[in-house]
Amino acid sequence: MMGKRISEHYTEQLEGIRELVLRMGGLAEAMTRQVVQALVQRDGSLLPEVRSMELQVNKLHVDIDEACLEIIALRQPAGYDLRFVTAAIKINTDMERIGDHAINILEKTLSLLAVPPLKPLIDIPKMAEVAQEMLKDALDAFVNGDVDLAQRTIARDDIVDQLKDDIFLELIDYMSADASTIPKAMDLILVSRCLERIADHATNICEYVIFMVLGTDVRHREYPS
Amino acid sequence: MMGKRISEHYTEQLEGIRELVLRMGGLAEAMTRQVVQALVQRDGSLLPEVRSMELQVNKLHVDIDEACLEIIALRQPAGYDLRFVTAAIKINTDMERIGDHAINILEKTLSLLAVPPLKPLIDIPKMAEVAQEMLKDALDAFVNGDVDLAQRTIARDDIVDQLKDDIFLELIDYMSADASTIPKAMDLILVSRCLERIADHATNICEYVIFMVLGTDVRHREYPS
Repeated sequence: MMGKRISEHYTEQLEGIRELVLRMGGLAEAMTRQVVQALVQRDGSLLPEVRSMELQVNKLHVDIDEACLEIIALRQPAGYDLRFVTAAIKINTDMERIGDHAINILEKTLSLLAVPPLKPLIDIPKMAEVAQEMLKDALDAFVNGDVDLAQRTIARDDIVDQLKDDIFLELIDYMSADASTIPKAMDLILVSRCLERIADHATNICEYVIFMVLGTDVRHREYPS
Repeated sequence: MMGKRISEHYTEQLEGIRELVLRMGGLAEAMTRQVVQALVQRDGSLLPEVRSMELQVNKLHVDIDEACLEIIALRQPAGYDLRFVTAAIKINTDMERIGDHAINILEKTLSLLAVPPLKPLIDIPKMAEVAQEMLKDALDAFVNGDVDLAQRTIARDDIVDQLKDDIFLELIDYMSADASTIPKAMDLILVSRCLERIADHATNICEYVIFMVLGTDVRHREYPS
């Protein structure tokens, strides 16, 4: 790196942060996909890799914050660059939480795989699919600074919320009809809440992308007067 | 403000951020306390104020990020000051989520108040008490840069997790014994998960305080080699 012009080094540092965020996002996405696959296909062999991905996510969580702080401290980014670095710090938190939720789903999957399945998994595979797509699109929106994609992704959060409510009511029916289904129905309800939270984090990421590109904060549109 | 020395203005800006964080933390704490009180005392009259506090929390969420970005962009803080501002950005996210969880508890409380109570609330009041104390201590640790208090607060997260597991098992028993209790038992399980998440956010705040004071990152101690 020695001998390079400072501005080049600065650009490389920003590029480095973008790459770390993408690597972490890719891992969070893969964890979610793989844990849902394990649940749907009842294949526990997919789970150890999910755990090892979480260790990588946790390491990146620390690395990204460090890289962001370093560039703020040493290079004093301003304008778009500062918003980019701030967005990276915020998105970092969301991605780490997505990893946590994938691990929560993993724990529930372990207990669900230990017993005969509860009929179909209702709309959980569909909910997982929408949440995963939202996460993928949120990361694409971040890489490309694509406000339009970010807005369309945020709009899909309502679909996930609706699916969560439907799943909840359907599982309550199962439990009411047959008390022996309660433990596994509970596990599935908690899985659906993890998926809902993953979609929420994808929504957060999109809001940070919009802030990064436009410099306007779209969170909480209704304020007290 | 005109005519003041720049360094004074800078110190005031940092102080302003601290005050905003404390105001928001106080609101998050009050929301949690009041919504649990409404649930335990079955007093819905406490709930409208919780909603109005959330609007203030949402406004502060945006204001704090703005104030932090402004000071980073214009004053280029370094060392402790930069870690303080970064901690404020992170803590801001946690406090906003605590407000969201209080609102989730509020929604469940509304449906629980509409039906006769499910015997006692088991250990939910106790769990709420520990979570609230953790939040209060986390904010005190932030104000005073108190690493020792932060560490003791983090240690209490295990108590909350244990209570959550106990509550879960006990409510599963209720549901299994009498299917008519399922909807309210489910609501209580979700309330206990919100309280668990509030304690998690208090833990996060403590980790940022330790990072702020010591400059070391205590999150994720186990890394892949």
